[in-house]
Amino acid sequence: MVVVMKERATEAQIDAVIARLIELGMDVHRSSGATRTVLGVVGDGKVDKEMIELLDGVHEVLRISAPYKRASRSYRPEDTVVTIDDVRIGGDEVIVMAGPCSAETEEQCQASAAAVKRAGAKVLRGGAFKPRSSPYSFQGLGEHGLQMLRRAADAHNLKLISEVMDVSQIPLIDQYCDIFQVGARNMQNFTLLRELGHARKPVLLKRGISATIEEWLLSAEYILSGGNNEVILCERGIRTFETATRNTFDISAVPVVKKLSHLPIIADPSHGAGRRDMVAQLARAAVAVGADGLLIEVHHDPDHALSDGAQSMFPSQFDRLMAELRIIAPAIGRSICLEPVARRGWAR
Amino acid sequence: MVVVMKERATEAQIDAVIARLIELGMDVHRSSGATRTVLGVVGDGKVDKEMIELLDGVHEVLRISAPYKRASRSYRPEDTVVTIDDVRIGGDEVIVMAGPCSAETEEQCQASAAAVKRAGAKVLRGGAFKPRSSPYSFQGLGEHGLQMLRRAADAHNLKLISEVMDVSQIPLIDQYCDIFQVGARNMQNFTLLRELGHARKPVLLKRGISATIEEWLLSAEYILSGGNNEVILCERGIRTFETATRNTFDISAVPVVKKLSHLPIIADPSHGAGRRDMVAQLARAAVAVGADGLLIEVHHDPDHALSDGAQSMFPSQFDRLMAELRIIAPAIGRSICLEPVARRGWAR
Amino acid sequence: MVVVMKERATEAQIDAVIARLIELGMDVHRSSGATRTVLGVVGDGKVDKEMIELLDGVHEVLRISAPYKRASRSYRPEDTVVTIDDVRIGGDEVIVMAGPCSAETEEQCQASAAAVKRAGAKVLRGGAFKPRSSPYSFQGLGEHGLQMLRRAADAHNLKLISEVMDVSQIPLIDQYCDIFQVGARNMQNFTLLRELGHARKPVLLKRGISATIEEWLLSAEYILSGGNNEVILCERGIRTFETATRNTFDISAVPVVKKLSHLPIIADPSHGAGRRDMVAQLARAAVAVGADGLLIEVHHDPDHALSDGAQSMFPSQFDRLMAELRIIAPAIGRSICLEPVARRGWAR
Amino acid sequence: MVVVMKERATEAQIDAVIARLIELGMDVHRSSGATRTVLGVVGDGKVDKEMIELLDGVHEVLRISAPYKRASRSYRPEDTVVTIDDVRIGGDEVIVMAGPCSAETEEQCQASAAAVKRAGAKVLRGGAFKPRSSPYSFQGLGEHGLQMLRRAADAHNLKLISEVMDVSQIPLIDQYCDIFQVGARNMQNFTLLRELGHARKPVLLKRGISATIEEWLLSAEYILSGGNNEVILCERGIRTFETATRNTFDISAVPVVKKLSHLPIIADPSHGAGRRDMVAQLARAAVAVGADGLLIEVHHDPDHALSDGAQSMFPSQFDRLMAELRIIAPAIGRSICLEPVARRGWAR
Repeated sequence: MVVVMKERATEAQIDAVIARLIELGMDVHRSSGATRTVLGVVGDGKVDKEMIELLDGVHEVLRISAPYKRASRSYRPEDTVVTIDDVRIGGDEVIVMAGPCSAETEEQCQASAAAVKRAGAKVLRGGAFKPRSSPYSFQGLGEHGLQMLRRAADAHNLKLISEVMDVSQIPLIDQYCDIFQVGARNMQNFTLLRELGHARKPVLLKRGISATIEEWLLSAEYILSGGNNEVILCERGIRTFETATRNTFDISAVPVVKKLSHLPIIADPSHGAGRRDMVAQLARAAVAVGADGLLIEVHHDPDHALSDGAQSMFPSQFDRLMAELRIIAPAIGRSICLEPVARRGWAR
Repeated sequence: MVVVMKERATEAQIDAVIARLIELGMDVHRSSGATRTVLGVVGDGKVDKEMIELLDGVHEVLRISAPYKRASRSYRPEDTVVTIDDVRIGGDEVIVMAGPCSAETEEQCQASAAAVKRAGAKVLRGGAFKPRSSPYSFQGLGEHGLQMLRRAADAHNLKLISEVMDVSQIPLIDQYCDIFQVGARNMQNFTLLRELGHARKPVLLKRGISATIEEWLLSAEYILSGGNNEVILCERGIRTFETATRNTFDISAVPVVKKLSHLPIIADPSHGAGRRDMVAQLARAAVAVGADGLLIEVHHDPDHALSDGAQSMFPSQFDRLMAELRIIAPAIGRSICLEPVARRGWAR
Repeated sequence: MVVVMKERATEAQIDAVIARLIELGMDVHRSSGATRTVLGVVGDGKVDKEMIELLDGVHEVLRISAPYKRASRSYRPEDTVVTIDDVRIGGDEVIVMAGPCSAETEEQCQASAAAVKRAGAKVLRGGAFKPRSSPYSFQGLGEHGLQMLRRAADAHNLKLISEVMDVSQIPLIDQYCDIFQVGARNMQNFTLLRELGHARKPVLLKRGISATIEEWLLSAEYILSGGNNEVILCERGIRTFETATRNTFDISAVPVVKKLSHLPIIADPSHGAGRRDMVAQLARAAVAVGADGLLIEVHHDPDHALSDGAQSMFPSQFDRLMAELRIIAPAIGRSICLEPVARRGWAR
Repeated sequence: MVVVMKERATEAQIDAVIARLIELGMDVHRSSGATRTVLGVVGDGKVDKEMIELLDGVHEVLRISAPYKRASRSYRPEDTVVTIDDVRIGGDEVIVMAGPCSAETEEQCQASAAAVKRAGAKVLRGGAFKPRSSPYSFQGLGEHGLQMLRRAADAHNLKLISEVMDVSQIPLIDQYCDIFQVGARNMQNFTLLRELGHARKPVLLKRGISATIEEWLLSAEYILSGGNNEVILCERGIRTFETATRNTFDISAVPVVKKLSHLPIIADPSHGAGRRDMVAQLARAAVAVGADGLLIEVHHDPDHALSDGAQSMFPSQFDRLMAELRIIAPAIGRSICLEPVARRGWAR
């Protein structure tokens, strides 16, 4: 923290501010220039910025960023690679996680899993518990949905990721999934984050729609500080004044996070776009900007999906997208898996 | 929902859109003008706007607002007044809820309760569980805090409001409090809202920092649809590009909510301002704009508060504010309680 | 400016940063703590923050706010009062400027002027040149409009304010008006601001819809630095994600500006609300929060106004509002003019 | 426009609304459903949405988007290609415009032009008039700057683009440049746009930092409606709550504009990023998402640039970026110019 005194602050005022900071357990380094005095403040971070700004003679208090520690690049200079068997998130390969918004039927799970596997995805996504802003919308199938998703993932040699909405759901989801997904609305559900800090599986943490990147990394810190080092960040759009898209996909978040943190970051162009006819474009942009992976909604029959049908890709669109991504990834020294069957698949 | 077709949409395209909507269980009313066709769509609200926009020939889909029912002014034209014994929130009197951010000590709870009672507050506020964005901050005293707050409220004939952060805390908080407070971060914690729909006590629902008014009313709908009609809304600032204040206090939300809904709405100028020297100004503005009450942080010794000290008022500031509010309230035909002791108190 | 070095920055890196800053003409004060080094940088403000952040070993650069000088409270501790004959903006009296959006007809100007004068306004507002976001909208009457407005102001002993959109319009508007109004869209039209710095009349500077308070004060600085000290600021709402209102009226801007600057600040609730049925509420809030005045659209026949009819008040609504404001103003030690005729007028 | 009546609106209210709309010159198509009546309104667009919303019985008014005509995709279904000799913006080739923020010296203009030409740029960018938010910053060299830029462009067979800030500068800039650039701050300077509608040269129109895409296209309409069909749009970031980057680069704007309009759209990653170490990433993303070109700041010696040095690329970085873009462009069926000399240049 840096305390900037007013140009006309008196010695008595400066001394009072220093005394208060020392009382709060901080170390203070004073630097007096020709026009004003600046105090460098070091300690364990418990001082309230606004509190100091209210003291007499203080012009403003500047907080040095990054109150997070374990999530920061300076804590761990090399990239974290989250590994689940042979799937490495944060390495050279761009990892694609794809599947339906929600598990609906056995046939749908199997067909969607087959389609995304064929195109080169490594992880199956699918929800069993859905957070919906209206109490009158479809709320998910619960454990039955998880069972169908697990069977589909196993049948096609895919890992499985699914959303956890509440502490009480952790044990159940833990039985079926390889990665816990925390949705945007729960990014600051600290009770949930703290509990996931004790889980033995990776956690994908989506950015809240109004969360700054700093707050997002602080939320990651909750998980990391519990002992779970396997956190994957996921950008999915923020809320702005623009209404032409449901959210504004913050593409810059990828290079910013890469600079501030060692954690892998992937992108969710489906929620970023909100509609199928823009998903491919944003997915391409995300790979070009340097994202470590993608989370994409694909449904074998989107027109009849029970949720998020409009933003779910048709399998044929997904095939074409994966082909485009295979051209783009090498531009930044990366690759995207090309399964033998897929190689034949999309070219027809 | 209204579907606006493109100017050059063909009859076949129009027919296909109508057929799809009927398949989804909707009633469709077609209106064809000189330049384009518009379809009025009525039904139970399960159609995805984006899904229809993807159909051929569709220009755009306009959603008629207010997917909430019970929260809307048209569902209940007269104002809802939430009543707890002799405290009526939403009536002619502006109700002030005040007290410390967190319960810290017996002495602090008692001194703060005495101070706010003396000035005219009707409800004591205070937290026992604190949501903090950093895992390294003070997290609250739990049940011990609730006990101290209850004793302080009873000793000064005040009602008590305290925050509930998770479903698991409901039974405990229910034992001690008169009003459940749901914080901004939990405004879309639907599991929590649904459960509070079954509670027998009023719920104060703060607006999320990036929530639209429509989303806020939808969250209220979760509680109302569970059978609990006693919901109090609370504006506390939204996130915008402006950084001079921690949040942007959305004063317009009060008249907008009054128009759209029958629920009472109060204002939290402490979080809206983020610093003590702006709380009084915003509190005055909130009463002048027509808020039904205020939620204000007052601490008997803010400089040593364990949390939110910078935005907590000194008792003397709170006294002065209450005196100002007593002048303003009559301008819009309202009153603010004047205790005998208070009348003497602040005038000295 | 404060340069915060990384925790592991080397001496060589620190020396290089200091050398670069000195090369740029700055004075540097070094403060080395246990964990990191902080550099206080003082000079004439030409150093690019981002440029320094790109240097090796730099964690971040914190800019000390207020690059403006003449607009700042520290430059001039006492309040500026802008005086036009007996009208004093920034003093004890809350000054109300009211009138139609645009001058349309002689009758309309006269009727509107009579109505606002009767209720207690001191300044007539009205546009002759209109910035419209669509090229197909009404663009104003030009000099003919100014002539009608001037006659109406003179007939009712009111001062006149009108908008200037371009440098080329300054001489013309100068002939007819007492105050130049700069609209939100021109807040960063630096060519215009610079020229108004040489004018001999007060300038009312509206806040841009996406301008921070700091940028707004910097724009005021353009005018002040040209030698024109009579700048009045005007808050009129900012753009946020909320769409329930056209803009979000930033009520906190008033106390923030009062703290940072000595300039008077008024509020424009008409544009802040965007619709007539919310103007009175916001106007009351603005006076309660401490604004020095109001700018309100009043039309003798709003339903037939050529522009902004929806946000123009009827004269009877304006009368009632002024009566309410006369109750509120004393709460903060202020008054609002009560003309003899008005006293009889609205009470009937 | 679509007028949605309240569920309980009376016949008299509905009739009154229809009568008012007809009085305003509109055609009205009534559609009465089981629960409410919806009115489709067609006409020349002069009706104020808020005005109708104030009428009795009206629930809300939904505006059908796209009040612009000539800028819309439905007005001209095929893509507009802006052509300047052999440079085609909006065709298969991705056009790169690059150069320094401001013209400073003959040597700098020549060196920068040589560098960008060598890497494959087709247009030289450079400013002679600079809009600066502080009155104390460098303001540009004026005509002398334009002369140096023109000589540098001619010497390297490049087209030239430069910013016009005011109507009065049009004739001068017209003498030297091939494309007029309108900056973000002037996106709603309607006087300037109207005048450029009569120019005989292409206009690059940057998006305002708080402009919606609809407002941006309306501003383009000002130019198009004057008879100048050669408008190029340029996304450069919008203002949001996130402060980790100077602006939030709205990558989705590219596909949205492609859908709504026939005009070419390019991206300015330099302003979108605000710092050099993120420009390449955003430039790659922009090409991958489908932008028709790029506008990039390149300086032969950015550390000593008089403005925007921090966001200007070194020539070697620009070379590398162009090489990456040549890999990405074919993924979406596009190319980027590869000059013979460049082919040898960057490969070393």
